[in-house]
Formats: sequence, structure tokens, C-alpha cells
Amino acid sequence: MVEDGGRVEGMSLGEFDIIARYFAPLATDASALSLRDDAAVLRPPEGQEIVLSCDTIVEGVHFLKDDPPGSIGHKALAVNLSDLAAKGARPYVYLLALALPAKPEPPWLEAFAAGLGALQRRAGASLVGGDTTRTPGPLSITITALGLVPHGHAVLRHGAKRGDRLYVTGTIGDAHLGLRLLKDPKLAGAWGLAKEDVALLVGRYREPLPRNTLALALRNFAAAAIDVSDGLAGDIDKLAKVSHAGAVIEAASVPLSPAAAKAVTHDPALLEALLTGGDDYEIVAAVPDGNASGFEAEATAKGVTVTMIGRIEGATGTRVLGEGGRSIKLGPKGFAHF
Amino acid sequence: MVEDGGRVEGMSLGEFDIIARYFAPLATDASALSLRDDAAVLRPPEGQEIVLSCDTIVEGVHFLKDDPPGSIGHKALAVNLSDLAAKGARPYVYLLALALPAKPEPPWLEAFAAGLGALQRRAGASLVGGDTTRTPGPLSITITALGLVPHGHAVLRHGAKRGDRLYVTGTIGDAHLGLRLLKDPKLAGAWGLAKEDVALLVGRYREPLPRNTLALALRNFAAAAIDVSDGLAGDIDKLAKVSHAGAVIEAASVPLSPAAAKAVTHDPALLEALLTGGDDYEIVAAVPDGNASGFEAEATAKGVTVTMIGRIEGATGTRVLGEGGRSIKLGPKGFAHF
Repeated sequence: MVEDGGRVEGMSLGEFDIIARYFAPLATDASALSLRDDAAVLRPPEGQEIVLSCDTIVEGVHFLKDDPPGSIGHKALAVNLSDLAAKGARPYVYLLALALPAKPEPPWLEAFAAGLGALQRRAGASLVGGDTTRTPGPLSITITALGLVPHGHAVLRHGAKRGDRLYVTGTIGDAHLGLRLLKDPKLAGAWGLAKEDVALLVGRYREPLPRNTLALALRNFAAAAIDVSDGLAGDIDKLAKVSHAGAVIEAASVPLSPAAAKAVTHDPALLEALLTGGDDYEIVAAVPDGNASGFEAEATAKGVTVTMIGRIEGATGTRVLGEGGRSIKLGPKGFAHF
Repeated sequence: MVEDGGRVEGMSLGEFDIIARYFAPLATDASALSLRDDAAVLRPPEGQEIVLSCDTIVEGVHFLKDDPPGSIGHKALAVNLSDLAAKGARPYVYLLALALPAKPEPPWLEAFAAGLGALQRRAGASLVGGDTTRTPGPLSITITALGLVPHGHAVLRHGAKRGDRLYVTGTIGDAHLGLRLLKDPKLAGAWGLAKEDVALLVGRYREPLPRNTLALALRNFAAAAIDVSDGLAGDIDKLAKVSHAGAVIEAASVPLSPAAAKAVTHDPALLEALLTGGDDYEIVAAVPDGNASGFEAEATAKGVTVTMIGRIEGATGTRVLGEGGRSIKLGPKGFAHF
């Protein structure tokens, strides 16, 4: 420790209290050792592989300072569960590394833990360990999530083949619009949005719902999958690239919520932003033609809407087609990760 | 993402390059999927439990801005491997979540990865995944490490019994002195230290060596164990508390390096700081009398010095005895975590 006194007056005097009061109730799996140890000891079920995901969210980068603490807890876990969903894994346990900029207030911690708790119950996961530390920087949360998948059945990012259909879950672009509305509430007027539209879009930004119920459909029918975190076009391009293929996306097929459709009607230039904006936490799956009806049926049975938006192609590169089959040229942001 | 442009101009344009160039060579296990996926897929060996540790280190809190990048990489992994060592687990794989304050320079990344790589090779671990993100705050690194231990053989923090001997590995207090010397180099004179002494103490702060070679000795002979990260007295108190017991530590028995002993000779008041300073990453083990000779022999065979420094007591609370058996009263810092 660089700052000796910090442990006494700042964070760490209360570290054990914080863990016991707010986080131990989330440690519902015996492997957590009630969070009273420095480590957890897991005995994974026989015949299962472990899928590991690790993502950090930072205030001012991945969420806003004014986001409710419950939403922040939810999002930190959701972005990881979304990675597990894309692999066809079911959530198992997770570790929480919390870097706090100041001594946290009990109401903040309570709401943060409640956000985590509600999502972990829904997902069937348990907190098993982690770390609480102080930082001179912004609030930062790293979660490592472990999922389970039967031996050899994980769905990977690579594995798509020429001709596979590209499906996406839910709707695309809501979170991007929600973020822009949070930063500039006046846009609601320009986009012709009602209060309820704004609430829906903001909710999609703050509390993405990972598609873990789709895991079995992906394992049974998908050749490859990825979750949409960095933007639909860019993430599809990643999937195609590691599959040594290309992709074509039909912009008109990309599913929009009624709120997002309203905004695009008012400002057609938004479409590109929706296709590249990210934070969707939906799943893109490459599904061979022969598996398509099975995939659709299984997704529908699980209450997840899936929409075919394009195909894997033989040629490399990802094309987005607009009205009349004309290529839409995306700005550099569309493929920022490359 | 809150900052749309950030991904293009700042970090994430290079994220894939960073991973491919600097971190993919550390992904020596097939489960890492060459770090080209969002998740790793592990098939742990049969009959093994998984021990999980997760610790964050933050610039200005757990290391200094001027620490060499190789040391920072080393330390981020070492603090986690130390937790695994205390559980009797052997290192297996780890995930790296790196939050970078600015676009990193290649030489920095190269040195950072080299520090990680040297320690992972020594420990027999492999990088399998993680996350690279940008932060407006200080450099922050969270590592989640997975270790393996045969079913039912993990050594826990609780389980110590009245009468158990308390052993500690290596020497105590070096890192604390190293940190103080880095913050105030003039102390070297006041403490009568030669250049080599200073180098040793600073090295112990910057690059703690986790005691993973002791894992088997702990599994075979220890009733409970903890790694010394927050301070010897406080960490022993934690072990005793969760074992529903107390502890007595004989200050004169606590092993000091020749450099630390020199400093204490010049400033006897330092002793308390050494017992409570932390950052040692040594292991304290509670060993029943009947196991003592076996434990000592096994540790010696592995080249690890272990020293008996006290015992577990029936009464609760942790006492530190000084000259002539008088109790040393530690300041609040000694037990800051409670």
C-alpha cells in the first residue's frame, strides 16, 4: 500500500463490513466460503466446461456519473453474462472487483448490490469472491464471470460458413439513442419521442438484458455467435473475420424498436449510428440454412425474438446494403476496432 | 460507450493490435482461443477443484507511478498467485483486465507483458482472456487467477486450532521499508543502509515473489493458511478470527532480512511498522505440532525458509509479545481491517 493511512480512515476499515453487509448475501453458492476467505473453491459439475468472461466498466466511459447505482451494478454483471450467452453457456458464478473513488455511502452500496442481486437471481448466478479497493480515479468495476457448457458444446466466435444466415436478437440501436438522450435531453423533441420512448431507450442503455435464455438455441443450432457490444456492423465483421469469411447486412432488416424507428423517421441519418453505436448486448448468430427453422422455433419458445438480417459471404469484408441494394458506406466508427 | 470517438482515436483502434502483439504470446493454453474470442473455454483436469482469486492494483495505491512497467505486470500477477499459494493450489490460468489512462506506448506494453510473462512461466500459468479499456483515472489492473487443487484438499483461512504453531515464510517487512525508501530516499542514511540493502528492499516492494512452491507442504501439513498482504499482525488476526480463536506472535521470532534488521537497529520503532506494514506476500500457516517436522522438511526441500513465530490460542484476539514477554500495543493500523 502506498498510502498507509488510507486503510484506516478511508476504505478498508469498512471493507469487511461492506462485504458482510452488502455482498455476502449475494454469495449463495457454497464455493464462495461466505466471502470470508481470499479465494473461492469451486467444484464444477462433471462433464462441463468452464467459459470465462472478464469485462471492466468505468464511470465516464461505459456508464454515466448520474446513472443510478442499481443500474451500474446491473450493467457490470450484464455485460459479462452477455458474453456467456453468446458462447451458449449458462451463468454459474462471478467475482467482483470494485474500485471505489471514495468511502461509499450505505444507500449507494445497498442499491448497487440490489442491482447485482436482481440480475444474478434472474440469471441463476452467485457471487463467489472479489476485491474491494480504493482508487483516486473514477468508479471502476471489473467482473469475471464463469459459465458452464457441456464438454465440446461451446459456441465460438469463429466457425461461421459461407451462406450461413445472420440472426440478431431483440432490437438494435436503443442503447445508443438512450445514451445520446442522457447527454442531450433536447434530442427527444428533434426525434419526435414521447416520454415513454425516452424511458425505454434510456433503460436499454442503463440496464441491458443479457440473452442468457438463448444459450440452448445457440448450442443446438448456431455455427458461431457474438454479442453486440461494440456495434452491430463491427461485431459482425469480427465474427466473419475470425471465420475467414465476409458478411452482408441488409439495413432494412435490422430490427428497431418503435421508439428507435420513430427517431430514424425524424432523422434518417441516425440509421448508421444505430448500426455502429454499440451497447446493445444482443446476440448475433450465424445459423446454417438447415438449422434456421429449429433456431427460430427454439428462440420463440424462450420468448426471444430473432430476426434474420443478412448472411455470411465467401468474400472477406462486411457490406451493409441499404435501399435498393446499394452499399451504405459506414464511417470509420463502424469498424473502429480494426 | 459514453465517448464515441474514443474508440477510434484513443485506445480501441489499437486494442486488437495490443492483444495480438503483446498478450497473445502469453496465451499458451489452448483454452485461451488465442485471445481472439470474448471468452475462454476451459476443461479443468478431472479430480481437481478450482481456486479463484481476484485482486486489483491501482497506481498510487498499490504501486507507484515510477515503478518500472515490468514490475507492475509482475506485481499484478504476483498478488493473485500469492492467494493461490495460501490455498495450496497450483497456478493454472488467469484473466487480465487492464484499464489504461492513455494510449499506451509500445515499449511500456512490451515491458509490462515481459514482467507478466516471466512470472507466469515461473509459476506455470497461462493468460486466457481479459479486457483492455481506457480510463480517465490512473492505471488499474485487475487479475483473476484460477488455481487447481485436488478435490477437498484446499487449505482455507479457517481451520486453525488452539495450540497450532504459526509459521511464516521468508522475511517480513522488507516491502514496507522498500516503499518508504522509494518515497523518501534519504531514509537510507538514517537507517544505515548500503546501496545493495536499498535495492533488495525496493525489489521486495516492486516484485514480490509468491510462494507457490510451498503449496504441497501446506496441503500436506497446514490446518489453515493466509498470505500476508495487509500486514503480518492483521492477517494473522484474520486467520485466528475466522478459526474462532486467537493468536500470539513473538516479535523477536519474526524473521527479518539483514537489510531490515539493520534498519531496525538504527530505528527500533520501525519494528511495529514491519509487523503491520503489509505487501509482504509471504505465507502464514497454522501447523499442528505433530505436523511441524514434516512441514519444515517439505518447505526446506522446496527451498522455502519457514520460521515459527507464535501459536494459535484459545482466547480470541491477537497479542504481539516483545522483549521479556511484554505485550506490544500496536496502533490502529495494525488491525486496520477490523
